[in-house]
Amino acid sequence: MPGGYNGKILDVNLDSGELKDLPLEEEMAKMYLGGKGLGLKLVYDEFRADMQPFDPDNLLVFATGPATGAKLPTSGRYHIVCSKSPQTGTVGSGNSGGKWGPFLKFAGYDAVVVRGVSKEPVYLSIVEGEAELVPAPELWGMTVHAVTDELAERTGNPKRTSVACIGPAGENLVPFSGIMNDKYRTAGRTGLGAVMGSKKLKAIVVSGSKRVEPANPELLKERVAEAMKKIKENPVTAPDGGLHTYGTAVLVNILNESGAYPTRNFQEAYFPDADEQSGETLVKKYLTGRGGCWGCPIVCGRKADVPEGPYSVRDTEGPEYETIFAFGSDCGVKDLDALIKANHLCDELGLDTISMGGTIACAMELVEKGKIPPEKLHGFNLRFGDASSMIECIWRTAFRAGIGADLALGSKKLSEKYGAPEFSMAVKGMELPAYDPRPIQGIGLNYATANRGGDHVYGYMISPEILGLPEKLDPYAVEDKPRWTIILQDLTSAINSSVVCLFSSFALGLPEYAGMLAAITGSDLDADKLLKLGERITNLERLMNNMYGLDRAEDVLPKRLTEEPVPSGPAKGQVSHVPEMINEYYALRGWVDGKPTKEKLKELGIA
Amino acid sequence: MPGGYNGKILDVNLDSGELKDLPLEEEMAKMYLGGKGLGLKLVYDEFRADMQPFDPDNLLVFATGPATGAKLPTSGRYHIVCSKSPQTGTVGSGNSGGKWGPFLKFAGYDAVVVRGVSKEPVYLSIVEGEAELVPAPELWGMTVHAVTDELAERTGNPKRTSVACIGPAGENLVPFSGIMNDKYRTAGRTGLGAVMGSKKLKAIVVSGSKRVEPANPELLKERVAEAMKKIKENPVTAPDGGLHTYGTAVLVNILNESGAYPTRNFQEAYFPDADEQSGETLVKKYLTGRGGCWGCPIVCGRKADVPEGPYSVRDTEGPEYETIFAFGSDCGVKDLDALIKANHLCDELGLDTISMGGTIACAMELVEKGKIPPEKLHGFNLRFGDASSMIECIWRTAFRAGIGADLALGSKKLSEKYGAPEFSMAVKGMELPAYDPRPIQGIGLNYATANRGGDHVYGYMISPEILGLPEKLDPYAVEDKPRWTIILQDLTSAINSSVVCLFSSFALGLPEYAGMLAAITGSDLDADKLLKLGERITNLERLMNNMYGLDRAEDVLPKRLTEEPVPSGPAKGQVSHVPEMINEYYALRGWVDGKPTKEKLKELGIA
Repeated sequence: MPGGYNGKILDVNLDSGELKDLPLEEEMAKMYLGGKGLGLKLVYDEFRADMQPFDPDNLLVFATGPATGAKLPTSGRYHIVCSKSPQTGTVGSGNSGGKWGPFLKFAGYDAVVVRGVSKEPVYLSIVEGEAELVPAPELWGMTVHAVTDELAERTGNPKRTSVACIGPAGENLVPFSGIMNDKYRTAGRTGLGAVMGSKKLKAIVVSGSKRVEPANPELLKERVAEAMKKIKENPVTAPDGGLHTYGTAVLVNILNESGAYPTRNFQEAYFPDADEQSGETLVKKYLTGRGGCWGCPIVCGRKADVPEGPYSVRDTEGPEYETIFAFGSDCGVKDLDALIKANHLCDELGLDTISMGGTIACAMELVEKGKIPPEKLHGFNLRFGDASSMIECIWRTAFRAGIGADLALGSKKLSEKYGAPEFSMAVKGMELPAYDPRPIQGIGLNYATANRGGDHVYGYMISPEILGLPEKLDPYAVEDKPRWTIILQDLTSAINSSVVCLFSSFALGLPEYAGMLAAITGSDLDADKLLKLGERITNLERLMNNMYGLDRAEDVLPKRLTEEPVPSGPAKGQVSHVPEMINEYYALRGWVDGKPTKEKLKELGIA
Repeated sequence: MPGGYNGKILDVNLDSGELKDLPLEEEMAKMYLGGKGLGLKLVYDEFRADMQPFDPDNLLVFATGPATGAKLPTSGRYHIVCSKSPQTGTVGSGNSGGKWGPFLKFAGYDAVVVRGVSKEPVYLSIVEGEAELVPAPELWGMTVHAVTDELAERTGNPKRTSVACIGPAGENLVPFSGIMNDKYRTAGRTGLGAVMGSKKLKAIVVSGSKRVEPANPELLKERVAEAMKKIKENPVTAPDGGLHTYGTAVLVNILNESGAYPTRNFQEAYFPDADEQSGETLVKKYLTGRGGCWGCPIVCGRKADVPEGPYSVRDTEGPEYETIFAFGSDCGVKDLDALIKANHLCDELGLDTISMGGTIACAMELVEKGKIPPEKLHGFNLRFGDASSMIECIWRTAFRAGIGADLALGSKKLSEKYGAPEFSMAVKGMELPAYDPRPIQGIGLNYATANRGGDHVYGYMISPEILGLPEKLDPYAVEDKPRWTIILQDLTSAINSSVVCLFSSFALGLPEYAGMLAAITGSDLDADKLLKLGERITNLERLMNNMYGLDRAEDVLPKRLTEEPVPSGPAKGQVSHVPEMINEYYALRGWVDGKPTKEKLKELGIA
């Protein structure tokens, strides 16, 4: 086995209760690295085109990579893949920080594959190499925070334990429920929590002390030192940089000033009250500390406290930029205290904040436009700009209470149910993140083509188009955007398979990642090979989506974004030009109508 | 069969799915009348002393009486009894208005007995004499309002249909969940909703057009005319009287000025902001209309609208006086809009407002006194006077989310869990209503002795002690209070077995009730016989509680009320003197240590 791996995958069969250790094949590690790539390959090996999201054989794979838990910056992450997402109908996929990934590795495994459906609620315990399924009907219904405390206590070593779990939303099969770890970290998107809920698996507890040695420790130390230097010198990732100082919420004012801060369900792209919910205001009014994931020198996490008022919440974490947008400008709500509260509730109940906020915004517009009639609301006064009705939606959705049963459909099916699908701001059924694509052409192309639907971190074109990293591109221009989008998407596939944090890529590039990974694994990985590996992963994921029946027809933005110009603000008049860019994107990818050709697959070594 | 009865009881076995019609025996009707009496007798006939609340053979009986649905004022009610309450450990019992009771009768039955536990969620449909159990897993989880609309639509005749159902709280076995009918009417107390939930019975739908004829229609018409005259001339029940004009909330200022408006978990008995939540303010700021139950000339129901603000709720009903106290003064919350919202949410989720408010108030004091540590709250900032945390408690309780799992224990077990049982303001585990018993001696004696625990409407001593009806008693005095309490308790047992609304008793007395019932049934019922019938019912209920192991030891108020004098306000210095009154009460009742003697039971014809 190469360095950096335990060489062991835990296979959990919830139908039979059987646990077994499988070897992590060297060839698989070489071709797919770990994390997302490994998860996809494991899913692909058992692929079934007529899979349904809550079928027992919808695999749920938790995977680390060679970098996870290694002495390398931002190596605190892991990736989760499932065969089919209940939200998007694509392969499901999510990524999370905290300490769960490293702790799984220290507990003796590189990955966990969960299959089947348990008869009663259970949790999986992996402590110092010993795995066990524990019946736990008494944990069903518990919030994320409560079950995390309870299970961490049960190991007898709470500080060296990490819990990944679902909240009530996952149990209730809300298709945009996430898998939460360390209370506040989330693999939020594509409804992985609902898949875990369908399996009656409440949590996976990991604890261990086994360190995995790199193949070449001296070389790794050297290359890590170079990477650390770059991180510490970069204006975004440095100790006095934007991310550490203001968190991801540093983007609020930047995006608003770019006229790309989506407002009231993307009816507008500029929110006059944005500064009231900015990273700067968060620091000034609510910040009590900062926190980082395992092994992170950037430390972008926020500790916040809202000591009084109607949205009081004590000693919580977050919120991230995307959460602020989703519950804030997108719902027309300006109060940052309410956004902190909304974030906290989503964490407790196990909901993806972007899709929750986007679905609420959609519902608010459906009410505003008279599409949802009052008798369906049973007295609930849902309207743009009202923080308390926004928060009530979170409770209602997690428990499918009243109109919450409709909100729990997600914006796509909700808007279809009420005869107005044009109000769903989603791609492939997944609600769009916090960047209006009308004035940022590359991010729009990325949204349209991302395999898991409306996703900013699939290929974060905001980095070159808005932040100017690694170089500044004109956000309004379409030229060369397909090529850039493809590179960032494939780079991200590699990053998510390593696994390191995407935020390190503000400072690092392919050569640095390849160099560190080569030192860990003892391979001859270089920048080109790493990018090719990323391309292989992107294409494998696309291939599976094609086999599910998705193609060009689903690589589209909501009509509002390609047909309705931004009505006001700095980007007034802009629309997204995805339709003009998509053919070039396909051509560069070696795809026809959204599908990789046989030649392309062969070139990438995909059978 | 006497007049006024269908003569038929529907027996529903949820274990087997079998439905059968049982005759209502004439002797039973004569001895126990209907409603509460009938329900208790049916339960008693299958009594088991080791019954547990969620055992399949915990019977749940929905019963009308000869007055229900008859042409007689306030005849829109029915009574529910269960063998054992999950809240109090006593026989369970509740009473509700609306139109469900009459509609059951028009559908062809006097009562429904539910036994067993269904394998999957079902509802019971009784339409024009045809009863059917319908599998309904798709209804499980629905709110009261949503399921009521859905099931009313399914009969094809929604306006002539009434639905009694449980909300999520009942499904989740919250021991103070109620059975709701017509969305806003509740058999709220003793956790009947949880018993229904344990049986997986989501709802009972009734619709029918069969009128039950009285034995002597002409005599009834005459006596009804006399009763109507008294109702229309009484200052409380008249068309321009207190109840119609201001609803039950007319009591807010009256009780507060008496220094008996319990505040901050009964730490005080005077709330300076009371007028902001009074019936007068409700009329001035939020009232949009009034509504009455079937056949009611008083019309005390409120239609309310809170068009904007953080506690906005559109076109709702209520709140009642007890609800205003429970979420208002008792939680230190003054905003009436928040109380209207809280009331609406309890109706949607199926919670008893008195016990919910009382439990929140208890939790607020436990937090205030440091008994519940912050780490159990996971960021939730629960505190007296904060409307939004009060409302959040409702969501948390119905779904047992976070600290809600503890709130769902009710104040007794909650306070015991946190080592401070003295903060539970409950009798027999049921939270006290809106009248501080320290300055109103009779109501305290009634609370202590009421068979179902902390209950004002078991023997509403407020009528003579505060309202001066039928005559004014000195509320501070203990003299003669045992005799008065007994009469009102037994009168109420008779009223709840008739079934008519207790509010009619502000204007009517035993002779009027007996006269109308005699005309309906064709019996020789008179005032003395009716009171004796009430006494029989009170004693039968007490006997069953004794068999469950309850006796004198449970006939007590919380220590705070007998030991801590009211600290301020008009009743400063008062304590309850229940210990001084209880022996006289027992002696007058023919009880020893809280138990009816054999002689007493024999006298009443109880085997």
